[in-house]
Amino acid sequence: MFEIYETKERIIEDNDAEAAKTRKYLADRKTVLINLMASPGAGKTTTLIRVINALKKRYRIGVMEADVDSAVDAEIISRQNVKVIQLHTGGSCHMDADMTRRGLKKMGIEDVDVVFLENVGNLVCPAEFDVGAALKIMILSVPEGDDKPLKYPLMFTVSDAVLINKIDTKEIFDFDEKRFEENVRRVNEKAPVFAVSAKNGDGFEEFTAWLEGQIRKELEL
Amino acid sequence: MFEIYETKERIIEDNDAEAAKTRKYLADRKTVLINLMASPGAGKTTTLIRVINALKKRYRIGVMEADVDSAVDAEIISRQNVKVIQLHTGGSCHMDADMTRRGLKKMGIEDVDVVFLENVGNLVCPAEFDVGAALKIMILSVPEGDDKPLKYPLMFTVSDAVLINKIDTKEIFDFDEKRFEENVRRVNEKAPVFAVSAKNGDGFEEFTAWLEGQIRKELEL
Repeated sequence: MFEIYETKERIIEDNDAEAAKTRKYLADRKTVLINLMASPGAGKTTTLIRVINALKKRYRIGVMEADVDSAVDAEIISRQNVKVIQLHTGGSCHMDADMTRRGLKKMGIEDVDVVFLENVGNLVCPAEFDVGAALKIMILSVPEGDDKPLKYPLMFTVSDAVLINKIDTKEIFDFDEKRFEENVRRVNEKAPVFAVSAKNGDGFEEFTAWLEGQIRKELEL
Repeated sequence: MFEIYETKERIIEDNDAEAAKTRKYLADRKTVLINLMASPGAGKTTTLIRVINALKKRYRIGVMEADVDSAVDAEIISRQNVKVIQLHTGGSCHMDADMTRRGLKKMGIEDVDVVFLENVGNLVCPAEFDVGAALKIMILSVPEGDDKPLKYPLMFTVSDAVLINKIDTKEIFDFDEKRFEENVRRVNEKAPVFAVSAKNGDGFEEFTAWLEGQIRKELEL
């Protein structure tokens, strides 16, 4: 047997007032912000490229790439001919609402309908900070394991949709889709779960159809 | 083209005095603390089981499992017949030196030679907080990609050894070991890199031999 010991109460800074300001900033400009979250290497950038290509005929798209360091992702995204800015969080493991609004201002969103924020690769902190987005989408990649909703419950609770990426490797990693969805349902009753492969494109038709429906709803508000 | 914009200066709390206290607490009891860090699902617990079984004949081992929530890992480790405690970080994405010392006290280390701290699954915050460990070991799993030292440089800078786990899947994920090691070397000149598979045991002989050498050195100090 073993003990469970709560070492520290959660400290959440007052980020909510800033998130309201960021929401107003976006609403005034009729821009929809989508917060994309996942572990390092789960496939955020590759997923984003598929989504951009599905949406860019109908919407003017902007991308904010948030990283502690480097511009690896912004370089890749810039080849998609969409507006892109690299944000450096200076060691912070997540974006907050103030940093997000400053990023939006710096990039300029007057000519942008939909902005994707690719958050820092992390399943903990990004879940705690409302950046002012209309939609939160998280990606769990198959090699991470189907037990992750138990260990990182907040991320799964706050997400509006969950993607299972690298679904083409599920046999190799003994990933049980049914068990995963049950684990998601313990903390989130309604977020749709989409199994996809950003590498080969499987499952993207269904996901991007859902996403477009959500974007349309937001733009009509 | 795109801009790079530094949104926030890094805020590091004064954790160093606490780390010195934790180091003294460990030294007084002749216990070696090893800080194990990785992304969610990189294989920390499976690796730990392999290491425990290689070392437990010679050393009395303790394990501190740090998670935001759940006791999934402590349950698995408790079957290995070693001392184990589950620490809940209360939403924090990392362990700090004070939390670590309180965990050590709660578990009790008078009868323990080597304590493994399985840190919260995260490549950002755990790298920033010295917990007072003698050794920092990080695991990067193949599906995360060989570019991760560029995006999470601090983690690779502070680590004393780097494991590449799930090496049996390197063909599937086009993981280039040589490029990965070059990326590690940009930020860390000397940490050995071990390619392993915690699933099938490949590479563990070499890694645990190195680890035992390090533990022996620490215990002789």
